[in-house]
Order: sequence, then structure tokens, then C-alpha cells
Amino acid sequence: MNAETSKDPVAAVIGGDAVLELLGLLAYAELTACLRTAVEADRAPDTGVQVALARMAVVEFGHYEQLAAQLVEMGQDPESSMRPFVAAIDAFHDRTTPRDWLEGLVKAFVGDGIARDFYREVATRLDGHARTLVEQVLADEGQDDFAVRTVRAAIEADPSVAGRLALWARRLVGEAIAQSQYVAVERDALASLIVGGQTGGGWDLAELGRMLTRLTEAHARRMQRLGLTD
Amino acid sequence: MNAETSKDPVAAVIGGDAVLELLGLLAYAELTACLRTAVEADRAPDTGVQVALARMAVVEFGHYEQLAAQLVEMGQDPESSMRPFVAAIDAFHDRTTPRDWLEGLVKAFVGDGIARDFYREVATRLDGHARTLVEQVLADEGQDDFAVRTVRAAIEADPSVAGRLALWARRLVGEAIAQSQYVAVERDALASLIVGGQTGGGWDLAELGRMLTRLTEAHARRMQRLGLTD
Repeated sequence: MNAETSKDPVAAVIGGDAVLELLGLLAYAELTACLRTAVEADRAPDTGVQVALARMAVVEFGHYEQLAAQLVEMGQDPESSMRPFVAAIDAFHDRTTPRDWLEGLVKAFVGDGIARDFYREVATRLDGHARTLVEQVLADEGQDDFAVRTVRAAIEADPSVAGRLALWARRLVGEAIAQSQYVAVERDALASLIVGGQTGGGWDLAELGRMLTRLTEAHARRMQRLGLTD
Repeated sequence: MNAETSKDPVAAVIGGDAVLELLGLLAYAELTACLRTAVEADRAPDTGVQVALARMAVVEFGHYEQLAAQLVEMGQDPESSMRPFVAAIDAFHDRTTPRDWLEGLVKAFVGDGIARDFYREVATRLDGHARTLVEQVLADEGQDDFAVRTVRAAIEADPSVAGRLALWARRLVGEAIAQSQYVAVERDALASLIVGGQTGGGWDLAELGRMLTRLTEAHARRMQRLGLTD
């Protein structure tokens, strides 16, 4: 919405800090997504599921490495850049620990999907290297087909699974929104960058609403693909 | 010792089965190494350690993918090829669950080192694609420096750590040898391939002894690098 912001010299400074924050946030999100997905892979009872989840974890780690390399190139220490987001992201994962590998698979699928939509949203607000990087991350293919096939098969084998997983997916989204809000409250520049806020702080609430609508609509389509009514 | 074996037509058949068994064994070993290392990465308290362990897990998964692809190319189903080795390898991991991330790091370092020495041993007994594959796996760089630096720092901070970790490393090797023997007893052709046995079964016990000596000597050198007397 506000791609012009970076041409304003004041906004460029704000934007610069916000971009660093965004990269730190995404780096820690990808790192923990990799680790939590790998833990679910280890717990999965079936080698095929283990391999599919491990493959997702490896892709997520690749994203982390790209984001960390970009931070280093911009003169930042990745660990320091990630630190402000550790509490919120760890809280998200601690509050959404899957009870079984099927919940783990849905979490990985839903999380990867929302992450990709989010990358697509912010890409339009970035310039230069950061934008190229985000587009590269987006170019990676997910393991969608495997998740869709496996969840649908599980529902076919036991239809009661559908209700439980639909509820689970709703909880995942709810917790993600809650933790995003904690981050947004503390990080005005970052929030402005993400939702296309006005120069000098204060985000565009209408644009935030539109973005959340787009993200939840895409999420609902993914739920339908899984055979879950959301 | 017995690189000629594959030129004997009878041995070529035996060797062919043994190579498939070897690839299945290595594939499952790499897959579980990846998953268990990733679990330790998730448990590590420090982002630097998490990233280093995750990087090792990703390398291990890459090896798994190469081995599985080779099995597919040879007309095999990777899951079926791995199945005979699940019990022994799972038993190894269940009997060597690290108590903390430092034991996890030592396990990953020691396991990776022994695996690489083992690949080097068997490479000389393989032909064609299988040999190329094993050499490719070997070409991957490990994360040795990180492990050495981190373990040495931990010992410097608390010298009592050295004795505990040395004992731990000894247990790892003991369990690995025990599980290898279970596998060898049931898989005569595979054992023959690995230790360079005579055509038609029965391994060369003297060569087995020499190989174990080489592997344990290399292990002792790695322990010294970590600052652990073994």
C-alpha cells in the first residue's frame, strides 16, 4: 500500500531499522520452525512422514541461513537481531505443542502457508536485497501435496479427526495473531513496514484489516484443501 | 582387503545384495542421525549451538536423500531397504539419549566422525555408483571446529565435564559396536562386504580386527581434539 515510503529520507531511516527487525524476526521464525518441525519428524511413527517433515525442516533451515547471511552482509549479528523476537516466537511454539505427529504435520503445513503469504505481503514493501531475498525464499517449493494427501487419508480412516484438526488449526492461527500483536505493540517501525503505515509511526489500521483478511482467506482455502472446514 | 571380490560372478551377486543392504543401513543411519541431532538442536539453550547442530542435521539429511535416491535408481524402495536396520539403529539411539545439549553435541561429533571413517573404509570395497556416492558423502565438510571449540570451552568453564563426556563417548562407541554386531550376525553378506570377507560368506576376522583398530584409533584422536582423554 505504501511502497513510496522508502523514497522519503526520514522514512528510509525508519524503514532501514524496520527491515533489520523484519529480517531478525523472520530468521528466528524460520530457525524455530525448522527445529520444531524436526522434533515432530522424530516423533512420527512412519518413515515416510519422518522424511517429509524432515524435508520441510531442511527447507526452513535454508531460509534461516539466507536471512542470517543477509543480516551479516548488512553488518548485523544474527543472534542479536533475533533476540528481541525470541520470547514471542518461543511462546507461540510453547502454546502450540502438537499432541501427535498429525497435529505436527498440520502445524508445519499451516505455518509454512501463512509464512509464505506473509512473505508475499511484505515483499511488495521492500527494496533491493531484502526484497530479492524474500522472493527467493518464496520460490522454494513446499511439501503441500504430501500434507494434503496424508491429512485427507487420516480423516478418511477416522472422520472424527477432521473436527479435532480444524480446532487445532484455529488455535494455531489465534496464537499466531496474539503473539504478532505483542510484537507489533513493541515495534512500531516494524509494524508500520509490515502493514504499510504512515511515515513517522502509527500504522494504517484499515490496511492492517485488509491484510489480515487476505491472510485468513488464504488460510481458509488451505483448510479446505486439507479437507477441514474452518 | 578384498577389492577383487566383485569380479567373481558369484560374488558379484552376493556383493550386489550386500551393497543394497549397505545403502539401506546407511540411509536409515543418516535419517535418524539427522532427526536425533535436530532434537538436540531444539533442546540447546543457545542460538549458536542450535544453529550449529541444525546445520549438522541438514548435512545428514542431505546424505539420506542421496542414499535414498541411489536406492530408487537401483530399483529399490528406500523404506523397505531401511526396514531391516530400524530395530538396531533405534536401539542404539534409545540407549544413547543425551542428558543435555553438550552430550548431544559430543554424540553428533563422535557419530559423524565414526560415520565418515566407516564410509572411507567401505568406499574401497565398492564399485561404480555406490562408490561415487560414498565418496560424495565424504566430501561434505563437517562442523568439527564448532564442536571442538564448544566442548573445550565447556571443559575450561567446568573441568569435571571432561570425565563425564569421556565416559559418555566411550558408551556411545560401546553401544555402536554392540548394535553393529547384532546386524552383522544376521547379515552375513553385508558383514562380508564391510570387513572384506571371502566369497560365499564367512568374514575375515583378522581384517575385522584391523578395521576396528583403525576406527578406534581415529576415534581416540577425535577425543584428544575435544580435550577428552579416552
